[in-house]
Amino acid sequence: MVSTRHLEDLDAASYEEYASTGHGLVLVPTGATEQHGPHMPLGVDAMLSTAVCAAVADDLDAVVAPAFRYGYKSQPRSGGGNHRVGTTSLSGQVLILQTRDVVSEFFRHGIRRVVVVNGHFENYQFLYEGLDLAVREHRDDDGGPVRALLLSYWDFVDEQTLEAVFPDGFLGWDIEHGGVLETSLMLHLHPGKVDMSRAPVHPPAELTPYDVFPEDPARTPGSGCLSSPAGATAERGELLLNAVRAGIARAVSSEFGK
Amino acid sequence: MVSTRHLEDLDAASYEEYASTGHGLVLVPTGATEQHGPHMPLGVDAMLSTAVCAAVADDLDAVVAPAFRYGYKSQPRSGGGNHRVGTTSLSGQVLILQTRDVVSEFFRHGIRRVVVVNGHFENYQFLYEGLDLAVREHRDDDGGPVRALLLSYWDFVDEQTLEAVFPDGFLGWDIEHGGVLETSLMLHLHPGKVDMSRAPVHPPAELTPYDVFPEDPARTPGSGCLSSPAGATAERGELLLNAVRAGIARAVSSEFGK
Amino acid sequence: MVSTRHLEDLDAASYEEYASTGHGLVLVPTGATEQHGPHMPLGVDAMLSTAVCAAVADDLDAVVAPAFRYGYKSQPRSGGGNHRVGTTSLSGQVLILQTRDVVSEFFRHGIRRVVVVNGHFENYQFLYEGLDLAVREHRDDDGGPVRALLLSYWDFVDEQTLEAVFPDGFLGWDIEHGGVLETSLMLHLHPGKVDMSRAPVHPPAELTPYDVFPEDPARTPGSGCLSSPAGATAERGELLLNAVRAGIARAVSSEFGK
Amino acid sequence: MVSTRHLEDLDAASYEEYASTGHGLVLVPTGATEQHGPHMPLGVDAMLSTAVCAAVADDLDAVVAPAFRYGYKSQPRSGGGNHRVGTTSLSGQVLILQTRDVVSEFFRHGIRRVVVVNGHFENYQFLYEGLDLAVREHRDDDGGPVRALLLSYWDFVDEQTLEAVFPDGFLGWDIEHGGVLETSLMLHLHPGKVDMSRAPVHPPAELTPYDVFPEDPARTPGSGCLSSPAGATAERGELLLNAVRAGIARAVSSEFGK
Amino acid sequence: MVSTRHLEDLDAASYEEYASTGHGLVLVPTGATEQHGPHMPLGVDAMLSTAVCAAVADDLDAVVAPAFRYGYKSQPRSGGGNHRVGTTSLSGQVLILQTRDVVSEFFRHGIRRVVVVNGHFENYQFLYEGLDLAVREHRDDDGGPVRALLLSYWDFVDEQTLEAVFPDGFLGWDIEHGGVLETSLMLHLHPGKVDMSRAPVHPPAELTPYDVFPEDPARTPGSGCLSSPAGATAERGELLLNAVRAGIARAVSSEFGK
Amino acid sequence: MVSTRHLEDLDAASYEEYASTGHGLVLVPTGATEQHGPHMPLGVDAMLSTAVCAAVADDLDAVVAPAFRYGYKSQPRSGGGNHRVGTTSLSGQVLILQTRDVVSEFFRHGIRRVVVVNGHFENYQFLYEGLDLAVREHRDDDGGPVRALLLSYWDFVDEQTLEAVFPDGFLGWDIEHGGVLETSLMLHLHPGKVDMSRAPVHPPAELTPYDVFPEDPARTPGSGCLSSPAGATAERGELLLNAVRAGIARAVSSEFGK
Repeated sequence: MVSTRHLEDLDAASYEEYASTGHGLVLVPTGATEQHGPHMPLGVDAMLSTAVCAAVADDLDAVVAPAFRYGYKSQPRSGGGNHRVGTTSLSGQVLILQTRDVVSEFFRHGIRRVVVVNGHFENYQFLYEGLDLAVREHRDDDGGPVRALLLSYWDFVDEQTLEAVFPDGFLGWDIEHGGVLETSLMLHLHPGKVDMSRAPVHPPAELTPYDVFPEDPARTPGSGCLSSPAGATAERGELLLNAVRAGIARAVSSEFGK
Repeated sequence: MVSTRHLEDLDAASYEEYASTGHGLVLVPTGATEQHGPHMPLGVDAMLSTAVCAAVADDLDAVVAPAFRYGYKSQPRSGGGNHRVGTTSLSGQVLILQTRDVVSEFFRHGIRRVVVVNGHFENYQFLYEGLDLAVREHRDDDGGPVRALLLSYWDFVDEQTLEAVFPDGFLGWDIEHGGVLETSLMLHLHPGKVDMSRAPVHPPAELTPYDVFPEDPARTPGSGCLSSPAGATAERGELLLNAVRAGIARAVSSEFGK
Repeated sequence: MVSTRHLEDLDAASYEEYASTGHGLVLVPTGATEQHGPHMPLGVDAMLSTAVCAAVADDLDAVVAPAFRYGYKSQPRSGGGNHRVGTTSLSGQVLILQTRDVVSEFFRHGIRRVVVVNGHFENYQFLYEGLDLAVREHRDDDGGPVRALLLSYWDFVDEQTLEAVFPDGFLGWDIEHGGVLETSLMLHLHPGKVDMSRAPVHPPAELTPYDVFPEDPARTPGSGCLSSPAGATAERGELLLNAVRAGIARAVSSEFGK
Repeated sequence: MVSTRHLEDLDAASYEEYASTGHGLVLVPTGATEQHGPHMPLGVDAMLSTAVCAAVADDLDAVVAPAFRYGYKSQPRSGGGNHRVGTTSLSGQVLILQTRDVVSEFFRHGIRRVVVVNGHFENYQFLYEGLDLAVREHRDDDGGPVRALLLSYWDFVDEQTLEAVFPDGFLGWDIEHGGVLETSLMLHLHPGKVDMSRAPVHPPAELTPYDVFPEDPARTPGSGCLSSPAGATAERGELLLNAVRAGIARAVSSEFGK
Repeated sequence: MVSTRHLEDLDAASYEEYASTGHGLVLVPTGATEQHGPHMPLGVDAMLSTAVCAAVADDLDAVVAPAFRYGYKSQPRSGGGNHRVGTTSLSGQVLILQTRDVVSEFFRHGIRRVVVVNGHFENYQFLYEGLDLAVREHRDDDGGPVRALLLSYWDFVDEQTLEAVFPDGFLGWDIEHGGVLETSLMLHLHPGKVDMSRAPVHPPAELTPYDVFPEDPARTPGSGCLSSPAGATAERGELLLNAVRAGIARAVSSEFGK
Repeated sequence: MVSTRHLEDLDAASYEEYASTGHGLVLVPTGATEQHGPHMPLGVDAMLSTAVCAAVADDLDAVVAPAFRYGYKSQPRSGGGNHRVGTTSLSGQVLILQTRDVVSEFFRHGIRRVVVVNGHFENYQFLYEGLDLAVREHRDDDGGPVRALLLSYWDFVDEQTLEAVFPDGFLGWDIEHGGVLETSLMLHLHPGKVDMSRAPVHPPAELTPYDVFPEDPARTPGSGCLSSPAGATAERGELLLNAVRAGIARAVSSEFGK
């Protein structure tokens, strides 16, 4: 068992020992540098995916890779749009290749099982392509077959938790940017980084079923949040984290037999 | 007004006249070459997005560009997976750059308004990136500001139509691959290309909230459909097309003032 | 034997059966969206290469892949130039990678023999590079050695046909853009898409033995045709198609032993 | 003045206010995930460049961007080599494009002055190329001319500090991988992440004046350190940090007039 | 007037003076490293295009850039094929981008007119794409409009010269690889690099009107020449060079008004 | 033993014989087109690396590949900067891929041992990445393991030679651009290409420990030299060449057992 879960804090000798067992599991948290309203910091997405990974890693004796702190361009219908100041993004090809490179390195180390835990909606397809390229490249590696999972953590919130967190009804993940989900998780995990006195109160953004280029700033609420985080609490954050943690751990165990 | 809506059937002189008005609108249908069950052909996605474009083009005096007949890799949770024989896909970077190139060409022609109409779920983010690159590149063109929309046609099916088409309840777009939506549209538009006697009857696929690499063939129903198309009819296809056509025409008019 | 020759119209199960025989042959038609004079549509190149493929496929029990409807930039000395409105092209790298991706997919399906049938002069070298990359990548595939052919269909017009089609003497393929060759084939195959009343009559373009950047619009005849299509007839088109069909079928059979 | 120096901890509204002054300065720390001997963690390079940035930011009212936690491939003559388990690297093109993208985003925010502070020797030329691409792209931005600096922090250690830290003589930066420099800085900044009881004691690595492909594992000391960190102390780390901090602050002020 | 024609032999101050006149003209010779039969060296293509450039440069007071000594993959129907040992080639994308980069640099220097003189058949389309990218990028440069020409030198051999060099009839440029054209030019320009005692005597290669992948070594004559160079003489080489030189000089003057 | 050392002057049959022995060794000289002061030509870097290769090739029965005559962008701290007129450079990605392609070709020929001899400081990391990609790609080639070395020739000047060449003390390689090292070597190897009457006399450039973007022309001495070449002599050049030649030959022999 490894003494810290974070690869950046591990020494190479300990990690090598871990990887050499053939049972190693690496979790890669991905996020973004993206505005999250006036009450939360720009780094929310990587903070949350990292926390989810750390929790899951404890359950599964896994190692957490350094998070991807820059993500794909923020889109108006899920993150407010990439025209906002502060949002600092990568183009699609860079995120694809970064994923391919990093995951390939873990396979080179002898790790046969990698899980990419996404915390920024817009990343998903580019992570998918990067993983597909890495897994194809290493399909016939000497060390045995490689396998990988890709997921966005919020897809593991179950119905029961959803009802507890959104007692007035859940309106969909798309408007949860800077809303109750992320803010509750941050209140539970990093309360010092949230200032609820600045949490905006406004109706949910009305999203069109299409995207406009170039972005039209008028369509994103001035706050940058796609729904109000007013209902967020640390307790709800804890519920959410527990649900996500349990769901992911179960899925990974079931897939990887651990 | 142009005499045919399809760019490939237009002569250059007529198109040039159309483009020179400054009011030209080009619709770009995108699809894939992807298995769609034993009862439908591999080209469904481009056939449907092309038909949607043609219908909308009639309403808005627009021109329909040649469809993208190859799309991004089929994913198990929306298209059955790219391991299936017959599915013939592009890598992410190729779809990004193809979109950038083609849309840039329309801007060069003097067209200021382009709508990309997606018919293959997996394409969306790569089309988004390609459009973003094209619009940034041409932002300061001499001919005036360029604008573009990106949409997936099924996002324009309204609640009322949904209820009519899925009287027993709608289970979500994700399992509609080769199901009632696409099959009904094909029965309405290309009845000769559907063989309902081969339509599979099986419960909807149970999708995991994550992706697995490499694909696990056992998770996709043998038929390749993620839900049964048994309830498909040409009438439902007509309802769907009407809803989508009206919704897109309304959206484009409202955005582009036409 | 497959019941339709066009992959987009085939269902996946039938195609899989076809591919699984180990004797499958896929023909990939490539074209462009390019001005072809005032009397013919922009899609001529893909229409013709698709028709050639369909004819050859009947002879050889082959499958025709969806055509590449966008091609490399039109060049003044073979297609009038990419400055013309309507011409809608890809950059070189996109065409290279699209070819690599699509052909690699057929190899993945178990198809061991692919023929790319080019209908747009400017494409050739980029198709060559894409094919070379695909074949190198799959050289050691488990399913046995892969092979591919690349050709431009007009290179299969024999001397006798040439004399019949150009009784006053043949001036070279380079000026055949929008001229007698393409127009005759279109009159034979798609008479409804040709308007001979608009066919320009002018002397052949005088081409320089070099290219100029940026393109000089004055060097391309205003019509967009590099020679007059006035001598085109459906009969000549039939002669041409027969010659090309027979020549390609013979070449493919001889190379692939079919 | 901004209340935190780290962009990931800042809310977008505060950062926007900061950027809008026109005097904003962003520091981008870059590192690697690379073995650093048995006594230090894999994340040393980003930890140190981040700490240097934070110190300089205090002096200059600057903002520190999220660090690049993955760097270019470790090379045997400066980092022990990329064959070591734990070292997790990017290919050159990815690092180039990531730098271009991220720095371009700061320019889009209205920031006119960016400093990239490198903490991993191997990164330098790829960061240089990425910065060059970003600055060329934004040279004519409306918001006024953009400027950037690139540096590796150890190049700001002055002679006097060098003598104090290496009383027995300084043997060159090349063998300082996992040696006295980095270990002293870590002891000063993150003492809990260093285990001096595991610090290897061996003569400096004898480096060839050339590189060998593929890497020859026998040339890197088993410890992964290119020289012994035995002489490292927190005091020496403080001296080093002070020298680097002062030197960089002076250079930036002098270049950017702040 | 510049004292040497070759950029690599010029000092920067003299070149800068030359470029600053606004009338500068740079010629870029391109070739390949490709087998040219047993009687000629691998560097023939760059040697010949360089010699052509030098001759033209004398007539037009131009500067000759360092030749591209590596070219696109040799193809069986024009160069014997890239499977031959000794042939050392670039992939398409590298040649495209190298051309873009190098030509862009001349535009940066203030040179407004560039001519790329090709000496390796296979290069042409990739040079075209690279030039197109460079000219688009610099279209709006401050220093005034940029212009470029692209040509293959053999396209400037006139009918009269052709008859003199091939008294028994000219069979086409495609089989001139290692044949009379190149060998005569080499005998005139670099007699010491030709060994006519090893010149192969065999009938012209019979070329198929298509390409085969992977290359089939049996189709290229063992000598590597596509036709026999037996008829080559230094006198014929001189005739050829004079024709090419005069033709190119005339074309460039006429285009660029010099 | 081969009769000439330069691949471009060798015929393919002789080279094939050489390569087929399994003991072949190819040296690849790399340089740049870069200003080198008023007294030396732009091609110095490739001329010197080529000369070094030729000398070493004589000792080791090696073949010298055509030199890379264009290199990575000149940087102010080692080459005066890429803003200088005459300097004609490649972007990083092009140099990476060119190196990968060319070295891969030698491996395809059956050559198992390649040495890249760098003559332009700025190239090193991009050559490294290209070599790494080529060696990874060919690691499992049928013909046996491939190996490569990368070096910059000046790193083989020993202490004794340094003292003889710089009797007043050596100030570091970084300011040797256009200085005593390169000028002496040119006086020895290509005296006709050096004009010592124009050799600038000025104090060494004072280099900052960081890079500035965009380049600041004022920081590079007007001459373009980073130190004065006044002390250069042909004798010193001979000393330098001998030291470099012996050092490289020894290193290659020791690595490759020849």
